[in-house]
Amino acid sequence: MKTYTEYLWFNTPTRIEFINITPQVEEAVRKSGVKEGICLVNTMHITSSVFINDDEPGLHEDFKEWLEKLAPYGRSYRHNLSGEDNGDSHLKRTIMGREVVVAITNGRLDLGPWEQIFYGEFDGKRRKRVLIKIIGE
Amino acid sequence: MKTYTEYLWFNTPTRIEFINITPQVEEAVRKSGVKEGICLVNTMHITSSVFINDDEPGLHEDFKEWLEKLAPYGRSYRHNLSGEDNGDSHLKRTIMGREVVVAITNGRLDLGPWEQIFYGEFDGKRRKRVLIKIIGE
Amino acid sequence: MKTYTEYLWFNTPTRIEFINITPQVEEAVRKSGVKEGICLVNTMHITSSVFINDDEPGLHEDFKEWLEKLAPYGRSYRHNLSGEDNGDSHLKRTIMGREVVVAITNGRLDLGPWEQIFYGEFDGKRRKRVLIKIIGE
Repeated sequence: MKTYTEYLWFNTPTRIEFINITPQVEEAVRKSGVKEGICLVNTMHITSSVFINDDEPGLHEDFKEWLEKLAPYGRSYRHNLSGEDNGDSHLKRTIMGREVVVAITNGRLDLGPWEQIFYGEFDGKRRKRVLIKIIGE
Repeated sequence: MKTYTEYLWFNTPTRIEFINITPQVEEAVRKSGVKEGICLVNTMHITSSVFINDDEPGLHEDFKEWLEKLAPYGRSYRHNLSGEDNGDSHLKRTIMGREVVVAITNGRLDLGPWEQIFYGEFDGKRRKRVLIKIIGE
Repeated sequence: MKTYTEYLWFNTPTRIEFINITPQVEEAVRKSGVKEGICLVNTMHITSSVFINDDEPGLHEDFKEWLEKLAPYGRSYRHNLSGEDNGDSHLKRTIMGREVVVAITNGRLDLGPWEQIFYGEFDGKRRKRVLIKIIGE
């Protein structure tokens, strides 16, 4: 059995941003040497996400508008009484999810035709980390 | 260590549909020979889901009505400017989730009393795939 | 390869409640002897969640208020025609998620600085179970 661990760092210039990290995850799979197994990719922060969807700019704008409607910025969140202004970010990230688990088959990420892995930032301009953990053989 | 991979195909007659796939996943676990491990079940498409909940028809209607309210069909999604009409499907699937990870204990899916695994289609009438990946021993 | 299975039981005094179960999961990792691998933590019930977020009481109140808005109690859910009053609980749990998968690195849960694992109950006053499954080496 093999395992492999890698951390990716992000510091986005804007508060909300989606970054396609599929190439970095593919590269981690290659480096791991795992041919059959699974790959966990998760944000290590509670105001960001890792999710899978289409790499289509219009859709990404739809996501941002929709999340703003479901969990608007600046409403009077109790969390913001702690000195933060990111109550909404915790809720937005909850909708988008913390992690994805992807199969590795024949040494490659076993993704569908349009599946791409994204880091979703909802409280940017800070250093954040994503964890890639691969297990298999 | 053992690994096992299987793909299930779907082509639903309606746009939105939930299909109980627990029997197929149980059968994959049996075929894998894995007694202790984990089973990943994910859709390979970005307008459908794999999720776990109750196999109760009233609840499924509630889910559909609720998702329609949270992400209505036919609103002016930017994604639809690309020629698609499934902007809502991407959002609905985000609420319901892409994947489930289920423990395998004593050679069986270690599910709670009411847990059933569903394929959730939000943009049907097309061929779509679900991936089952099992690792363990 | 090692595997380890443990079940945690809950019976909350209130209908909706969040319980930090990170110490129990850390202890399970220690007992498993796994140094590198992954840890699945999932509720075995369809009206509760396991999720990761911040252990900040104001945020937890924000989550409860937000979920009540997205999926209010006591609306006329079709599911409630089956004699239940927990239609909303199934929807709330869907937003919060069924499971988390956490990496194990150097024998510890590889969590970010603020990540804590919670059991989220949305239909309490009943005995419920959480499953911890660890695989690795």
